[in-house]
Amino acid sequence: MAGNSFGQLFRITTFGESHGEAIGVIIDGCPAGLDIDINYIQAELDKRKPGQSKITTQRKESDTVKILSGTFEGKTTGTPIAMMIPNEDQRSKDYSHNVDVFRPSHADYTYQTKYGIRDYRGGGRSSARETAARVAAGGLAKLLLKTAGIEILAHVSSVGKINAPNVIIDDANDFLTAREKNIVRCADPATAEEMINFIDDIRKQGDTVGGKVSCYIKNCPVGLGEPVFDKLHAELGKAMLSINAVHGFEFGSGFTGSEMRGSEHNDIFIKDSDGNIQTRTNFSGGIQGGISNGMPIEFRVAFKPVATIMHNQATIDSQGNSAEISGKGRHDPCVVPRAVPIVEAMAALVIADHWLRNRNAKLA
Amino acid sequence: MAGNSFGQLFRITTFGESHGEAIGVIIDGCPAGLDIDINYIQAELDKRKPGQSKITTQRKESDTVKILSGTFEGKTTGTPIAMMIPNEDQRSKDYSHNVDVFRPSHADYTYQTKYGIRDYRGGGRSSARETAARVAAGGLAKLLLKTAGIEILAHVSSVGKINAPNVIIDDANDFLTAREKNIVRCADPATAEEMINFIDDIRKQGDTVGGKVSCYIKNCPVGLGEPVFDKLHAELGKAMLSINAVHGFEFGSGFTGSEMRGSEHNDIFIKDSDGNIQTRTNFSGGIQGGISNGMPIEFRVAFKPVATIMHNQATIDSQGNSAEISGKGRHDPCVVPRAVPIVEAMAALVIADHWLRNRNAKLA
Amino acid sequence: MAGNSFGQLFRITTFGESHGEAIGVIIDGCPAGLDIDINYIQAELDKRKPGQSKITTQRKESDTVKILSGTFEGKTTGTPIAMMIPNEDQRSKDYSHNVDVFRPSHADYTYQTKYGIRDYRGGGRSSARETAARVAAGGLAKLLLKTAGIEILAHVSSVGKINAPNVIIDDANDFLTAREKNIVRCADPATAEEMINFIDDIRKQGDTVGGKVSCYIKNCPVGLGEPVFDKLHAELGKAMLSINAVHGFEFGSGFTGSEMRGSEHNDIFIKDSDGNIQTRTNFSGGIQGGISNGMPIEFRVAFKPVATIMHNQATIDSQGNSAEISGKGRHDPCVVPRAVPIVEAMAALVIADHWLRNRNAKLA
Amino acid sequence: MAGNSFGQLFRITTFGESHGEAIGVIIDGCPAGLDIDINYIQAELDKRKPGQSKITTQRKESDTVKILSGTFEGKTTGTPIAMMIPNEDQRSKDYSHNVDVFRPSHADYTYQTKYGIRDYRGGGRSSARETAARVAAGGLAKLLLKTAGIEILAHVSSVGKINAPNVIIDDANDFLTAREKNIVRCADPATAEEMINFIDDIRKQGDTVGGKVSCYIKNCPVGLGEPVFDKLHAELGKAMLSINAVHGFEFGSGFTGSEMRGSEHNDIFIKDSDGNIQTRTNFSGGIQGGISNGMPIEFRVAFKPVATIMHNQATIDSQGNSAEISGKGRHDPCVVPRAVPIVEAMAALVIADHWLRNRNAKLA
Repeated sequence: MAGNSFGQLFRITTFGESHGEAIGVIIDGCPAGLDIDINYIQAELDKRKPGQSKITTQRKESDTVKILSGTFEGKTTGTPIAMMIPNEDQRSKDYSHNVDVFRPSHADYTYQTKYGIRDYRGGGRSSARETAARVAAGGLAKLLLKTAGIEILAHVSSVGKINAPNVIIDDANDFLTAREKNIVRCADPATAEEMINFIDDIRKQGDTVGGKVSCYIKNCPVGLGEPVFDKLHAELGKAMLSINAVHGFEFGSGFTGSEMRGSEHNDIFIKDSDGNIQTRTNFSGGIQGGISNGMPIEFRVAFKPVATIMHNQATIDSQGNSAEISGKGRHDPCVVPRAVPIVEAMAALVIADHWLRNRNAKLA
Repeated sequence: MAGNSFGQLFRITTFGESHGEAIGVIIDGCPAGLDIDINYIQAELDKRKPGQSKITTQRKESDTVKILSGTFEGKTTGTPIAMMIPNEDQRSKDYSHNVDVFRPSHADYTYQTKYGIRDYRGGGRSSARETAARVAAGGLAKLLLKTAGIEILAHVSSVGKINAPNVIIDDANDFLTAREKNIVRCADPATAEEMINFIDDIRKQGDTVGGKVSCYIKNCPVGLGEPVFDKLHAELGKAMLSINAVHGFEFGSGFTGSEMRGSEHNDIFIKDSDGNIQTRTNFSGGIQGGISNGMPIEFRVAFKPVATIMHNQATIDSQGNSAEISGKGRHDPCVVPRAVPIVEAMAALVIADHWLRNRNAKLA
Repeated sequence: MAGNSFGQLFRITTFGESHGEAIGVIIDGCPAGLDIDINYIQAELDKRKPGQSKITTQRKESDTVKILSGTFEGKTTGTPIAMMIPNEDQRSKDYSHNVDVFRPSHADYTYQTKYGIRDYRGGGRSSARETAARVAAGGLAKLLLKTAGIEILAHVSSVGKINAPNVIIDDANDFLTAREKNIVRCADPATAEEMINFIDDIRKQGDTVGGKVSCYIKNCPVGLGEPVFDKLHAELGKAMLSINAVHGFEFGSGFTGSEMRGSEHNDIFIKDSDGNIQTRTNFSGGIQGGISNGMPIEFRVAFKPVATIMHNQATIDSQGNSAEISGKGRHDPCVVPRAVPIVEAMAALVIADHWLRNRNAKLA
Repeated sequence: MAGNSFGQLFRITTFGESHGEAIGVIIDGCPAGLDIDINYIQAELDKRKPGQSKITTQRKESDTVKILSGTFEGKTTGTPIAMMIPNEDQRSKDYSHNVDVFRPSHADYTYQTKYGIRDYRGGGRSSARETAARVAAGGLAKLLLKTAGIEILAHVSSVGKINAPNVIIDDANDFLTAREKNIVRCADPATAEEMINFIDDIRKQGDTVGGKVSCYIKNCPVGLGEPVFDKLHAELGKAMLSINAVHGFEFGSGFTGSEMRGSEHNDIFIKDSDGNIQTRTNFSGGIQGGISNGMPIEFRVAFKPVATIMHNQATIDSQGNSAEISGKGRHDPCVVPRAVPIVEAMAALVIADHWLRNRNAKLA
């Protein structure tokens, strides 16, 4: 129960540290017969990898994924699928200054106290590098969901106090095209430009800034999610909160919903022109009673600013003495552009898991 | 994997519907030798029970809990502890109008579609009545945590747009006394009065309103929480999001943190006068890298307005025909006063679970 | 992880001690829409209850089961099904002699050492009374399996050194009728009589004796069981070994198979007259590579003699001093007649669980 | 829930097929601070590897293990430990004759039917090659248990009808030395010679033979094992039955116990000269009520003969037509010599898991 697995039926277990041999993941429970498109999975990883643009860290790692097991002649076989990403650019010397000093708002102090030992190089296991393994597994989950027409679509909806307007997604490909046209991964071009300039400015100041990622799940069938503890939004919430730097999660009306009245918040059921049941509004965010209701699932994820800044900061060392830490290494001024594929990956893992779980809801 | 269990080592499984024989819970994994104070557990339930005040539902149920197993001569024995709460006030006829009509923003439609059958009386399993079983189990978890000096303290921090000022908790008992002095369970007396008047007004309009509960965990030792998926705040988030009507969760700086810069957000380590390591600020909300850092844990939970209102609403029936639903039954105008003990219970369950899990972090 | 749950998708959690308020079980994961026949479940319990005949314990308990949740209008709803069996005949005074003395080959010493406390009345949680909850849950599992035509059939195949001839089951009902015609539950009438006389003789001597139960599963579809750790026979083995007094498990050729050569042990595939794939022999016991192959599943379970005998025995007390214990209470001279429904129940739980798990083996 | 994980707190997940890139394992839950002796782990693997002697398969694989994560400066860090063993000697062409034919008493037919696809090369995932990953993980578990003085000791106790006399283990090293002095891994030299000659004879006939492995666990503390489903012997039984070719498990008196009377079977408690509580006999096999009682744990595991023989055998192909299969490839005439380290590894994994689980049995 050491917390490195996620999901019940579509279940992943990740391993690896920032500066070890490799990171990777085992996926257990993927049904047999799924066509594996390794290029698709690699493309997902490429959206997360460092060194993509001027507003991401300048570290360089190709993050090339290799499948070690579980497939045969291009298809899954029902056996565990292991994927490995070797670590390449391990400038461990960059971290020698961290050996005995606790970086503010990092996991150094808590890991050291919990375990009595820590791999201080690049944050070790607490590094967001671990999320590459999630993105690889999430790529597989997306391939599974595509067989059912389910699309997971996220973009950067805010950086600092710059907020994008609400997005209405008519076509998944159009949305992705718009998003990938800019390096901040915001589907609204005008806002994207503003965000990029702001992050670049922050970067030049040696500072960092937070932001939000909004995610939409289209064509999710009715019925996914398990009462009472494994409500679909509770599982999505845990998935998102498990991503490094996340400090908040809301779905549908979210925090704003807490200010509303029932008479304005209730989503009235209607029948659309094709005879399908829908709701007029979607304050429920596509989930009612913890179960998907067929409307688009909508949620937002808040990321705090990256803790590593290029300023000198006061701190303490492992003996509790005062110390100073100066910013070194290569880090992101804002994490959200690279967080978009991670949010999508975790969402895909939750939906894939519940898609399988829901197969046993009814007798026939 | 049907979702009715929560926790790994301190693990609960709940059962029961709003209008069945009984609801209840099995707690598996409570260590042997804990003194059981049944009056304390009952007092927790009394804070959740219906009919407490003019601003809660007027249903009357004593919610008397009975322990069926797992204790001997007043102590836990290490075997599963079953607790049962019989259902008393089951006016099932109140719900005959729900047989064939899907109430807006309730779980009727999703349950019916997922399972092909539903117990429509009072929402069946989707009713918040199920949370009484959680409060009973959470009471036991609190007793366990008290042996380690850990206190879980929540109160109503907003109703609609009425927000309480930030609370600084010096003494747990003072906080609880202040909170229990008013029927809305807000520790700030002036705000409480404003909230109560507002809810009463909403109630007279046959409407409902949302709100927020803030929770503080004091004296939590360093080291609780498991990387990478079972981060302490991810587990708290899932726990809170699994409570009926919750639409958002944030900890520490939360959503506001996404607007901040790293240079203002970083929590600088200091040594207090007793030589203990603390942080000057607490934007981390007591959790760093998913692991408690010894500072107070702070989080906020957003509740949407109750869906059952005393207005006529358009909807559809199970054949997809247009229908109208008129508000009936006895319901809460605002759920947060009764949600306070539920938030505390779920927090206690998470902390108890991780307190046990952390015992195995180190070899010695 | 305290060990009171069994199964993954069809999952049970039991509670209760021999002399507490009640024993019971929560079943989580039973698909919605199953017709519940409470009389069938009660009839299963009646085969396990004490006081059935002269060769079982003379304790009297009606073992009446009550369903508390999870059903509506006679069908399962997909929500957890709680079943409770109140304890009736609790002559706790019979056990006052056990307070401070460790009974040989019982769980007194290990429970006391592990937990530092124990409910000494009738063995508390270690009593085989707990298996009544399993039989109730197993009854539900059997009802589920009957919808797929799967039959679980066990009988007593040995008592002491008296062995029944191998049984060929053409018709499940004929087998059950033959078995229930005698109080020892052996399907071979001549052997049954011999067994009954032997047990009665043992009983008069104040002694006890072991025996074996053989179990057959008919019409199990191909494909149940999950490589590599959750092989179908490994799960059946764990299930059987978790029953009180069981000391051994074997399937197919079993221990005898370890003496055989490959050339005689291999089961040659053939096609029967209906074109179905079968094997000429069944040394595999219906399971190959951990997965059912469509042949009858066959296994055998060895029970040690009941530890409570009506003789004086030397032992030690909780201070480690020499003591003597004299046989008291009402106990079974041989456990196997009442173990037959328990073996069937545990087998049904394993098969039901894997029947659900197998639904996700393939994509389509 | 696809069955590739084992254990709860000391939890392993394995991956890999016989002829894929690599096999491996992730161990999650090993406490931080354990010294890693990679040479010890490799030595365990060397006992399992093919090509050791004339009575094992002549395939050659070095089975060199590499640690990918979870350790730092020679110690475990509390993060997941991934170990990988590349596949080397993959003569896939040896298996081309298996593409469309189901080998008798192998998993070909069941895998093909369950998954609709199978990696036919060397049995794919159903190959005993997977157990190398278990041996690597078990080596780590043994290192953990050594810190508590617990020793896991197995040897070959029978081959066909040749049975070794009972072994009394005074000194673990003496036992291991005696066992490793011969290629069949039987601690009794005279029997070992007889076994070796017999297996060599069987091999020359192109046939195979079964056998038994006996295992002893010394210095296991009192209290390991969780009632009611996770009894220590039930977990050991599942672990053993999950090993390829195992058809039976018994502990303590085992199947023979089913023939005994209570008056002869009961283990009388005594105090030894050091004041420790022991039992005069050990028919309980070191486990009472599912919990270790401090006596040596003793169990036996029955292996069927290897299914691959060098004879021509009738079978059917995937269209159900009659076919003939001729023995090819390089296989073991008797699996038990190489099974000894696997039995020990699985036992170590069970004991390590319950050693951690037992830390939470009591409050203090």
